[in-house]
Amino acid sequence: MVKSVEVDLGTSTSLGSDTKIIISDEDSVQVETNQLLTGEASVVNSSGKKKKETRLGISVKKDEDFGNWYSEVCRFGELLEYYEQVKGCYILKPSAMKIWNVIRRFFDAEIEKMDVEEYYFPMFVSRGALEKEKDHIKGFAPEVAWVTRAGESDLETPIALRPTSETVIYPYLSKWIRGHRDLPLKINQWNNVVRWESSDTTPFVRSREFLWQEGHTAFATKEEAEQEVLDVLNIYSRVYEELLAVPVIKGIKSENEKFAGAFETKSIEAFIPSTGRGIQAATSHCLGQNFAQMFDITFEDKKGKRSMVWQNSWGLSTRSIGVMVMTHGDDKGVVFPPKVAPVKVVVIQVPIKGAVDDQVLCDACEAVVSTLHEAGIRAKSDTRDNYSCGWKYADQELKGAPLRIEIGPRDLANDQVRIVRRDTGAKMDVKRGDLIEQVKDLLEKIQRNLYDVAKRKLEECTQKVETWEEFEEALRQKKLILAPWCDEVEVEKDVRKRSGSDETGGGGAKTLCTPLEQPELREDTLCFASGKPAKKWSYWGRSY
Amino acid sequence: MVKSVEVDLGTSTSLGSDTKIIISDEDSVQVETNQLLTGEASVVNSSGKKKKETRLGISVKKDEDFGNWYSEVCRFGELLEYYEQVKGCYILKPSAMKIWNVIRRFFDAEIEKMDVEEYYFPMFVSRGALEKEKDHIKGFAPEVAWVTRAGESDLETPIALRPTSETVIYPYLSKWIRGHRDLPLKINQWNNVVRWESSDTTPFVRSREFLWQEGHTAFATKEEAEQEVLDVLNIYSRVYEELLAVPVIKGIKSENEKFAGAFETKSIEAFIPSTGRGIQAATSHCLGQNFAQMFDITFEDKKGKRSMVWQNSWGLSTRSIGVMVMTHGDDKGVVFPPKVAPVKVVVIQVPIKGAVDDQVLCDACEAVVSTLHEAGIRAKSDTRDNYSCGWKYADQELKGAPLRIEIGPRDLANDQVRIVRRDTGAKMDVKRGDLIEQVKDLLEKIQRNLYDVAKRKLEECTQKVETWEEFEEALRQKKLILAPWCDEVEVEKDVRKRSGSDETGGGGAKTLCTPLEQPELREDTLCFASGKPAKKWSYWGRSY
Repeated sequence: MVKSVEVDLGTSTSLGSDTKIIISDEDSVQVETNQLLTGEASVVNSSGKKKKETRLGISVKKDEDFGNWYSEVCRFGELLEYYEQVKGCYILKPSAMKIWNVIRRFFDAEIEKMDVEEYYFPMFVSRGALEKEKDHIKGFAPEVAWVTRAGESDLETPIALRPTSETVIYPYLSKWIRGHRDLPLKINQWNNVVRWESSDTTPFVRSREFLWQEGHTAFATKEEAEQEVLDVLNIYSRVYEELLAVPVIKGIKSENEKFAGAFETKSIEAFIPSTGRGIQAATSHCLGQNFAQMFDITFEDKKGKRSMVWQNSWGLSTRSIGVMVMTHGDDKGVVFPPKVAPVKVVVIQVPIKGAVDDQVLCDACEAVVSTLHEAGIRAKSDTRDNYSCGWKYADQELKGAPLRIEIGPRDLANDQVRIVRRDTGAKMDVKRGDLIEQVKDLLEKIQRNLYDVAKRKLEECTQKVETWEEFEEALRQKKLILAPWCDEVEVEKDVRKRSGSDETGGGGAKTLCTPLEQPELREDTLCFASGKPAKKWSYWGRSY
Repeated sequence: MVKSVEVDLGTSTSLGSDTKIIISDEDSVQVETNQLLTGEASVVNSSGKKKKETRLGISVKKDEDFGNWYSEVCRFGELLEYYEQVKGCYILKPSAMKIWNVIRRFFDAEIEKMDVEEYYFPMFVSRGALEKEKDHIKGFAPEVAWVTRAGESDLETPIALRPTSETVIYPYLSKWIRGHRDLPLKINQWNNVVRWESSDTTPFVRSREFLWQEGHTAFATKEEAEQEVLDVLNIYSRVYEELLAVPVIKGIKSENEKFAGAFETKSIEAFIPSTGRGIQAATSHCLGQNFAQMFDITFEDKKGKRSMVWQNSWGLSTRSIGVMVMTHGDDKGVVFPPKVAPVKVVVIQVPIKGAVDDQVLCDACEAVVSTLHEAGIRAKSDTRDNYSCGWKYADQELKGAPLRIEIGPRDLANDQVRIVRRDTGAKMDVKRGDLIEQVKDLLEKIQRNLYDVAKRKLEECTQKVETWEEFEEALRQKKLILAPWCDEVEVEKDVRKRSGSDETGGGGAKTLCTPLEQPELREDTLCFASGKPAKKWSYWGRSY
């Protein structure tokens, strides 16, 4: 039982002016804070023994130092930990794995409807197979990790760790596909891949090993393949918009930016306003017949004629978790959209000395958790008696649970609880009898609100330009730029060079995608960069 | 619509005397076979065009050439494919992944009750960490694969691929565990691991990369750790006995055979009568405080005293699928226990020329599949018209579905279906109205029967011996041997040497485990191998 709380402001590193400490009576304290409570606080518990509360909070603001903010949110929000043994690798903690499993279950259910089947192919690729498709290996070679030794012996030939599995899987498509009855063949696997990034690794977004799913499919016709590319892109878009509450843009990658070896890459792109950088959120490639030719993947059609298959490959990775954190997180920590939140509600007792025994409050908390569980809502109590309730509020806010329920003596007396929203901070008192209905309603509202806010920000950040001067100014303002383009490879390369890098090391601007939904293009519109006739509107920006 | 069937006996490699070809009228054929239909068959379909049916069947008998039988069953039963790029690696096909996912869901649900949480740690281990616990690295060093190059550059120091993750995870336990409130800490992950076996790779059972789960837990006390070792062993035992219908023996590994670095290894062991070899089915180690000492994993107890934690690690791999195939498979192919069967019922039409239009039969098959799906029973139809029903029966038997439903014109007329059991071959006619009840009942019976048959075989193979002569004879007869042992390391090594290898390359005999359930040991019992006083009964045999 907490008897009194002393907040030691002296050692706090970021206790800001928004913090109010309300001494409501001699023996109890309420802490209301709009900022994370950091540093140390001393709590005198019922045994009279003084304890130190140490809490490492977010030390920087999202708007002021995004890079460090993001790193701290990921670590202190308990999503991941940096792996010190090997740079650029990260440990995914239970919160991250729970989100990944929600995505996995959703995606598996959707692709099952498309008759995609799960396989597991080895992670080792021989040099010969890896180098078969020239564009493909050119794209991946600089990042390939090689196993050259086992035990005390050198291997006869080095073996690569898959950066992606086209070259692992396609020799088998060549074996398995004989006739038109073997098509379509649809493979998916959930696995780890390795891309030995030389610099600029970022939690979730760019790491040397990461988790993903990769789909690999083969069809008799181009039409079927192209339809599937769109179908998968739609599922990816739903993962982001419906589960992660992140708005994305569906589009086509430029020739420069498409997947190494692909015929055409479609993608969904997200945008991070704080850094003004686009981020490729997932890709769905039509590989055309490039790989079919190199790996000899052919089938006999109904008339006995031999043709090459049309192939797709598509992938979604744990990067998605990073995009979600970047989009919704705030200066207090992680903000989880309810649909993926590992814990949706945290229930905390608010003891007031002399009012009610702490155990009664704890029991009330557990009862609320039970009620929520029965209604299928993942909830947990935080009834630890070695932390103050203010400390626990900050902890819950740091870790991102969408709702907090507080139960104090007055709530007990009035047969109510206090519910606090993580996204807006709004508070409401709710009768115990209305609890489930209200919690469900609030979770839906939070899910919608997070998406709406992100969507509004995206729209506010989007700028249409038609000239190089407008483009430069918009880039300086960290905008997502929609510009008319002549669709020439050399012009994109030139823009990248001319736009230079920004103060945070973001590279030159490039196309993010050409959106599937095209604004009207006047006939006389010129390319913003080359002055040649424009062929399309494309999104441009710096990117992750 | 199949008009007539000609079975070309000339090219068949294993069409035995059990096969009956019944020409029931001029235009139709029924093939009843107790052996797999192999080789080629020609089918004249309704368009009058002759097609070749090619079916690669099991070419050897389980009792006569187990090694090749097993390889063929795995491949032709579509569980896996050999990976040609890198020896000792295998491609897991959808059937195998579906079983693995059933096991995963069951196991995840069980360990969730124990508050184990899912993490994902990187697969890369630095040399320094890997070599920290001397016994551990001694055990794994010969099989460790090393990454030495990335892109075109050599790494500063080689990096190992995890053979298991103790050395990856434990530096973080040292960081995360501070006080008694941080305990117990329970981690599980589902991942791939690499052990570069130099020889004797076997599908599922021993491969250079495999999938598993690995649990890593830390406790304040030895008692808690030891209790968990048993709790996990029980779950493993349930995976084998309840899901895979494979009887296992719970026991303790000898000093020679325990996990490298462990305090004590408990395991479940299965036995393959055809080869007379034991197979370690899953392990649950109490690591004691060995790793805690090396990795400095300590906590402050309630009294402020610093102590080392007690640790466990435990793992179950895709090897389990191989044990299941070895146990239940027969000369016709895979036999799936219903609880893990990717498809529980295959429904096939049996057309008779002139009786009913083939489409009517196909519709009846689809209707049965729908009825089964509505009852939650995974079923599929095989209404392909380019294969005879005899061929399809063989195909279903090869791939292991527990039940086959046949629907012919007579069945339609009598509002019934014919159900055939995969395990016994027994047939019964069932009224359409009783379908679900009967199918459920049969699936339960098959699950129980597979376990009972395997259990009986295990008991028949088990031999108690007390002398070296009895031991040698039992070993020659491929028995699972229960023998009194003095529990001395040197004696086990000596037995291994003296027993030599068998004709299939199985190494010398060793202890499989000392069963938790001990038969009574008379006080004057002597060790079968050394003649010294025996301390316990242990299981001995050759092993995988």
